[in-house]
Amino acid sequence: MTPDSQDPGLRRAIIDAVADGFERQVHFLTEFTRIPSLRGQEDSALDFMAGALRARGWSVDDWTAPLESLRHEPGFCDCAGEVRSVRSVVGTLSSGTGAGRSLILQGHLDVVPEGPHAMWHSPPFAPEIRDGWMYGRGAGDMKAGKVAALFAVDALRRAGVTPSGRLHYQSVVEEESSGLGALATLARGYRADCAFIPEPTGLGLVRAQVGAIWFRLKVRGRPAHVAYASTGASAITATMHLITALQRMEARWNDAARDHPQYRDVPHPLNFNAGKIAGGDWTSSLPAWCDVDCRMGLLPGDDVAARRAEITRTIETAAAEHPFLRDNPPKILWTGFMADGYTLNDADAPEACLARAHHTATGQDRPEDQSWTALTDTRFYGLYHGIPSLCYGPLADSIHGFDERVDLASVQRCTEVIALFIADWCGLDSLPGTPGKA
Amino acid sequence: MTPDSQDPGLRRAIIDAVADGFERQVHFLTEFTRIPSLRGQEDSALDFMAGALRARGWSVDDWTAPLESLRHEPGFCDCAGEVRSVRSVVGTLSSGTGAGRSLILQGHLDVVPEGPHAMWHSPPFAPEIRDGWMYGRGAGDMKAGKVAALFAVDALRRAGVTPSGRLHYQSVVEEESSGLGALATLARGYRADCAFIPEPTGLGLVRAQVGAIWFRLKVRGRPAHVAYASTGASAITATMHLITALQRMEARWNDAARDHPQYRDVPHPLNFNAGKIAGGDWTSSLPAWCDVDCRMGLLPGDDVAARRAEITRTIETAAAEHPFLRDNPPKILWTGFMADGYTLNDADAPEACLARAHHTATGQDRPEDQSWTALTDTRFYGLYHGIPSLCYGPLADSIHGFDERVDLASVQRCTEVIALFIADWCGLDSLPGTPGKA
Repeated sequence: MTPDSQDPGLRRAIIDAVADGFERQVHFLTEFTRIPSLRGQEDSALDFMAGALRARGWSVDDWTAPLESLRHEPGFCDCAGEVRSVRSVVGTLSSGTGAGRSLILQGHLDVVPEGPHAMWHSPPFAPEIRDGWMYGRGAGDMKAGKVAALFAVDALRRAGVTPSGRLHYQSVVEEESSGLGALATLARGYRADCAFIPEPTGLGLVRAQVGAIWFRLKVRGRPAHVAYASTGASAITATMHLITALQRMEARWNDAARDHPQYRDVPHPLNFNAGKIAGGDWTSSLPAWCDVDCRMGLLPGDDVAARRAEITRTIETAAAEHPFLRDNPPKILWTGFMADGYTLNDADAPEACLARAHHTATGQDRPEDQSWTALTDTRFYGLYHGIPSLCYGPLADSIHGFDERVDLASVQRCTEVIALFIADWCGLDSLPGTPGKA
Repeated sequence: MTPDSQDPGLRRAIIDAVADGFERQVHFLTEFTRIPSLRGQEDSALDFMAGALRARGWSVDDWTAPLESLRHEPGFCDCAGEVRSVRSVVGTLSSGTGAGRSLILQGHLDVVPEGPHAMWHSPPFAPEIRDGWMYGRGAGDMKAGKVAALFAVDALRRAGVTPSGRLHYQSVVEEESSGLGALATLARGYRADCAFIPEPTGLGLVRAQVGAIWFRLKVRGRPAHVAYASTGASAITATMHLITALQRMEARWNDAARDHPQYRDVPHPLNFNAGKIAGGDWTSSLPAWCDVDCRMGLLPGDDVAARRAEITRTIETAAAEHPFLRDNPPKILWTGFMADGYTLNDADAPEACLARAHHTATGQDRPEDQSWTALTDTRFYGLYHGIPSLCYGPLADSIHGFDERVDLASVQRCTEVIALFIADWCGLDSLPGTPGKA
């Protein structure tokens, strides 16, 4: 007999199973958050996930794609040569009959740098729980959601059922800088009827997300002793001039964004950020060099190449009117994201499943629609491969900031929602050996 | 019989002796310039100098003064705790009768950072000679002058004479950041009737020099994901706001400098420099921190404490009008110079000796007077100890910049001038064992 995912008793059993496993889940999340999986240092976290999948009997695909092998995929960016290869770990669960719809449960395990530790209340890679929140770099973005997806499947199995459709549990890197991890799994051939990414949405659904472009400005010039400031120009103040020009461009783009259907109510959707700066060597030497790493948002529907050309033009125009930069034009490196914005459309079926699951777990009708000023990997599935891609996850706070944290009650709700969503979307089969529960 | 320093034959013999030794001098300068004697890494260069003095039979005083022992000396600054102690090497030559005037020959051996090596034509610490110039970090500022002073004494001795007055050949550190090296030698008790510092002046005489104040601004604040730029403010753009305020202060100070007797003809004597900047950790995180190292000049006669208070006030005022800095006031660290400007006065006697030496070596009446927009250690001798202090040395180019270089012909002239100056100022005795030459 096929278990009925709408059966209230089964739904209650699934929720109870999540609760039963939640202490282990929090412990697992703590261990996972301990791993400082910064860009380029994700191997331990990938190993951790591969081990967890193998221990659960998933079949595991753990491979490294040379960057060149990805070049012709849509959404590719070359990260200015700073990324040579991309490792991913995908677990596949085919324990059911395969009759149901398939699902990709994707999550990134890269985290952004933690910044000066002195500015954290507790050490960023020594997770602590206070007042129901877990604190730690990556706890919110997005290790809690990622772990929730894994434990959601565990809960189903503890409830005596297993997804009828094929499941891919994907651990990817580079989400925070380029999306090359998601792209590598698609290049490998992984497809499904739906993708689900539990980024921290506060149990809302991302309806629209911006795109982004990353670039580094490298200003170079001949400096001198500060005594002769007039004979050499400062690379630092020249860089300030470029940042100011980009801030003016940001204002123009946001003015234009007032007409966008998904963003007309968002006050300032497109953010320019000079995120990292370094320049000069000595207090009393005119700085000869300055590098600044920049990020600029763009709207769903914007043409990335055209936006990139506008950024280039803004920098070139600003340089041409500056006495030092005119003779020392800045170099622009495209260091990461070359990312389209994305709007979730044509996803009625998975959205209906999500709404039912959300209702069961929270009592609310449906998750709130969100227009994000950040981005997620959903664009790869939705834009380039026609796979409806839901982004829904727990409540986090101060992601990318100090004292990043995730609300553990919301993590439990989210785990319930994912389990119920899987049950509904993929259908269920009884697990052999637990006939009494089906 | 006492040799007559004005005797044309002896003066010719001294000049010839400089020429005889010049190949060795250039070799010595090459080896000395090879040593990357950056701030905090001066030990090898001090050892090198101590060895050179011992090999010549000078008595050597090589000591390290704890910073605290210097606190009550005039001109002291505490470098924000970043300097713990100051090592100096002083050679004393008392080979003559002691009847003549005494002289301090001082030179610093610290060099400023070389910056990105790719911007040098040849490696900064592998000195090369091209078209009569020696290239290398520190070759000009001020290793060539420093070596010239040592080889000037060598030349006198090869000419069969030795200074009648006591000579102190002083190797100091921290000239480029605080002056604590010069201060340490004065605290040790070294005094003389005149001090001579062969900084690269292009065979001119420094009549006036500016003072300077060093400080670091530390901006800190709570950042966030760039998606929420409005909830966290950028430490980098906040720092830009402070730099702009300091540039306005710089303009005001230079307007006021138009009345200064030594600087009314200097277009922009007081330079503000943001010399080094570092901030932020990630392109897509709002930067939570930014540090910038700054230098501001001041005029001879300015009160350092009052200028420092003005800098503080400028920063505080700018912070108060900035939405982020208002709640996160920047920290100011005083990281180095707290230096008075200095004008050379009441030095008729040594100036006359220098003019005679300069005339003999170059044919010009007297060295050109210079109003420097940089500073030297002369202020310690002249301002605080009433020791007339001459700054005169070879021709250098691009000091603190890439491809720093010194003109070797000017180094030879400078060596002649220093030798003739010593002869004139200190008087001469015949060296035992070379009676025929006296």
